[in-house]
Amino acid sequence: MQSHDILAKNLRMLRAGAGLSQEDLADLAQVDRTYIGGLERSVRNPTLAVIERIARALGVEPYELLRPGRE
Amino acid sequence: MQSHDILAKNLRMLRAGAGLSQEDLADLAQVDRTYIGGLERSVRNPTLAVIERIARALGVEPYELLRPGRE
Repeated sequence: MQSHDILAKNLRMLRAGAGLSQEDLADLAQVDRTYIGGLERSVRNPTLAVIERIARALGVEPYELLRPGRE
Repeated sequence: MQSHDILAKNLRMLRAGAGLSQEDLADLAQVDRTYIGGLERSVRNPTLAVIERIARALGVEPYELLRPGRE
């Protein structure tokens, strides 16, 4: 599975688990409000700095966003 | 520890373990020959696509490049 798809899947799961809308998470991670939707559709290519901000906003380590199989 | 520093540390260790020079790895990962040095000095902000290419070149999963404490 490609990293962008793994990130998309983990993001959707963690965001829902935190009870956050895409807009809530975008605000917390200081990214554009449509950016999270783009990541969840695997159509964005985020930098490490953005991945880190999103991870911090979700309370996880950045590498956990890229780890496959986080059921 | 910031993700860029974790990446730098893991990259140096894995690259040395694979017996690759920075230029060798840059060629394998199809990035500029000075880019790997920049990552290892934490002065570059790579995209997920670049992180994935470097991980594949080193034979590891992308999330492993960002995992702390890979002694």
